Amino acid sequence: MWSNAASCPARTAPTASIRLELLAGVTGMSQRSELARELTRALIRCHSVTPQDGGALAVLEEQLKPAGFAIYRLRFSEPGAPDVDNLYARIGNGAPYLVFAGHTDVVPPGDTAAWRFDPFSAEIAEGEVWGRGAVDMKGAVAAFTAAALDYVATHQPLKGSIGLLITGDEEGPSVNGTVKLLQWAAKQGEHFDHCLVGEPTNVEALGDTIKIGRRGSLTGTLVVHGTQGHVAYPQRADNPIPHLLRLLTALIAPPLDDGSAEFDPSHLEILTVDVGNPATNVIPATARARFNIRFNDLWTPQTLSAEIDRRAAAVAGGARYELSFDPCNALAFVTARDHFTDLAVEAIAAHSGRIAHFSTSGGTSDARFIRNYCPVIEFGLVGATMHKIDERVPLADIDTLADIYSEILERYFDQAPV
Amino acid sequence: MWSNAASCPARTAPTASIRLELLAGVTGMSQRSELARELTRALIRCHSVTPQDGGALAVLEEQLKPAGFAIYRLRFSEPGAPDVDNLYARIGNGAPYLVFAGHTDVVPPGDTAAWRFDPFSAEIAEGEVWGRGAVDMKGAVAAFTAAALDYVATHQPLKGSIGLLITGDEEGPSVNGTVKLLQWAAKQGEHFDHCLVGEPTNVEALGDTIKIGRRGSLTGTLVVHGTQGHVAYPQRADNPIPHLLRLLTALIAPPLDDGSAEFDPSHLEILTVDVGNPATNVIPATARARFNIRFNDLWTPQTLSAEIDRRAAAVAGGARYELSFDPCNALAFVTARDHFTDLAVEAIAAHSGRIAHFSTSGGTSDARFIRNYCPVIEFGLVGATMHKIDERVPLADIDTLADIYSEILERYFDQAPV
Repeated sequence: MWSNAASCPARTAPTASIRLELLAGVTGMSQRSELARELTRALIRCHSVTPQDGGALAVLEEQLKPAGFAIYRLRFSEPGAPDVDNLYARIGNGAPYLVFAGHTDVVPPGDTAAWRFDPFSAEIAEGEVWGRGAVDMKGAVAAFTAAALDYVATHQPLKGSIGLLITGDEEGPSVNGTVKLLQWAAKQGEHFDHCLVGEPTNVEALGDTIKIGRRGSLTGTLVVHGTQGHVAYPQRADNPIPHLLRLLTALIAPPLDDGSAEFDPSHLEILTVDVGNPATNVIPATARARFNIRFNDLWTPQTLSAEIDRRAAAVAGGARYELSFDPCNALAFVTARDHFTDLAVEAIAAHSGRIAHFSTSGGTSDARFIRNYCPVIEFGLVGATMHKIDERVPLADIDTLADIYSEILERYFDQAPV
Repeated sequence: MWSNAASCPARTAPTASIRLELLAGVTGMSQRSELARELTRALIRCHSVTPQDGGALAVLEEQLKPAGFAIYRLRFSEPGAPDVDNLYARIGNGAPYLVFAGHTDVVPPGDTAAWRFDPFSAEIAEGEVWGRGAVDMKGAVAAFTAAALDYVATHQPLKGSIGLLITGDEEGPSVNGTVKLLQWAAKQGEHFDHCLVGEPTNVEALGDTIKIGRRGSLTGTLVVHGTQGHVAYPQRADNPIPHLLRLLTALIAPPLDDGSAEFDPSHLEILTVDVGNPATNVIPATARARFNIRFNDLWTPQTLSAEIDRRAAAVAGGARYELSFDPCNALAFVTARDHFTDLAVEAIAAHSGRIAHFSTSGGTSDARFIRNYCPVIEFGLVGATMHKIDERVPLADIDTLADIYSEILERYFDQAPV
């Protein structure tokens, strides 16, 4: 019956309260799983490629509101970036306050003809739900929503508070999403004790990895100025390209570091080199390159840019060049271990049979913003098919993830002071 | 009175024969100089940026036809290239046949506001004629036209033949110019004994340099294929840019050679590197570079491309790359010394006081096509201002160049078998 309940596009939901009554009446793994599965499918059916919401937030609101959650739909605007819809939900007034964070937007499906099924059809085949966002991260949003609804339905009165922080701008410019949601919440006086982001953290199997931090990201530009001239008279010109080759070669090696206690080695990739000279007889005046560094906690943007400056200067010779860096909004961070990280590992082990590895690898996520407000960890599905053709998630993984999130809620509030 | 005689745009020229009569009556340096100067100014006034003729060829025809030259106006066409007007003129039937070659087209003036005078006004200031084409090479075309007219007027009957091979497609694609003129002439049974191209060959002062050959030019493309991926997961991608840096570094050093008896060292310049990746979190799939080699007579396009292949292969490692070369229409060549090169040096010394240096440096010229038909040398004005803002030529240099060309004609036919 859930298959009809949670549907997209959003509509007024006369059946929502019935569903919750059912859930309240006959809780248990199978009901929770069924809700998690059907929410996953309902969310996948929403065409929510950033910045489109596609009705995805309404699917959640439809479930959360009747359960007693206070719902705030927040549309943020900023010149130069698309407007984006976001959702903040909270139930309970007291501490401790555990917030689940995630996003309902997805990356574009690419060549839809290359997909086995329509990427927004949420077909089930071979025990998996297929579609864009299945693992990144509609499946996890569905799982923690189902877990929260289940917990609320069976644990009245609540010992603390449960919240959901859902953005539609994680895969896009990240301008009108989590950053502004957090600022808005802080202004309202909301104080989070812990946050769990449902990004796909697992590498091989559900339960293998918790992210407890992320590397930082710094992007830079190197421009070399030469002197234009005719290729037949190189002595009257100064080709900037050999200078650029030398400078870039010095930037990529040797390695920036060997890694730290919590992090892999920092790493620089050259993103692009562009000269744009169409002529076959002209030495160009200027050559430009861009690079990105994923850096660990041995560096700040300041020390890192100084190191890049030093490497360039060491081989510059007479080259005239400019090094500049984009504003950095992703510092390296790591969340200190506490009872929350411990109980997460225990909950994961209880339902997956795996002892999760603490990791700080991979790309950036919205956790880099949340960590300024409260301790944050990330745990979700297996990322293998994320951003790819035929993204999909085993139904069993959705069930298990909902179980793990439920277990985390149980343990979190059990351990909380009365 | 010459100032009114040679004018642009072209018109019917009732005064042309009068002018030639005057020249025939009172020959001498001053009259020849006056004609060379006024032809220079008349040609500069023609807006003949490739492929426009702007009336330039008519200025020449107006002078040559009344003097007895057979005139052929040849407009060549080819799909993908603009139509271009050309002129072939000959007087005399016998051998030896000396041909002056040149072009009346010019490169664009660039920012005309940056010029001291309108680049097509041929103003005289501080003893110089100012304007686009003054040295490259309307001044030289004017000088050899004046010298030929003077010689014809005073040396009847002619001992051999004098020709002019004038194209309007030297600064452009060079498709509908000298190559087709030469093919056309060969088809007519025309046989040239020697050719003198009036390109600006001198470096510091008129008389310092004769070009007796040119380097070849070969352009190549290097494409490196990597594997696209996310910058946060470099182990799952293969960035083509570091491969490209390594390959290009191997192409530019060590030097290709140390030069040969007649030539400077061959030289490779990287023209452009283009990746075009706008993203800051994506490792690109492909990187592309173009390069041009000016090569001497130690190489053919075949041996040179093999050497480039060898250099790339030596450092390729596992990189997947493609090296390709544009069709080569500029082989290295050198003209053997003979009585013509000797008398050119003597004529130059007689009027400039300088012993010309034999050179093969600089860019390509139409001499690379002519050399397939007869021995060819190049001698013209001083190239310092060519292709630049405020291109200009001293009036004294026009006079001296006309004197040198006259002296070459005298000596060439004096030494010819009767």
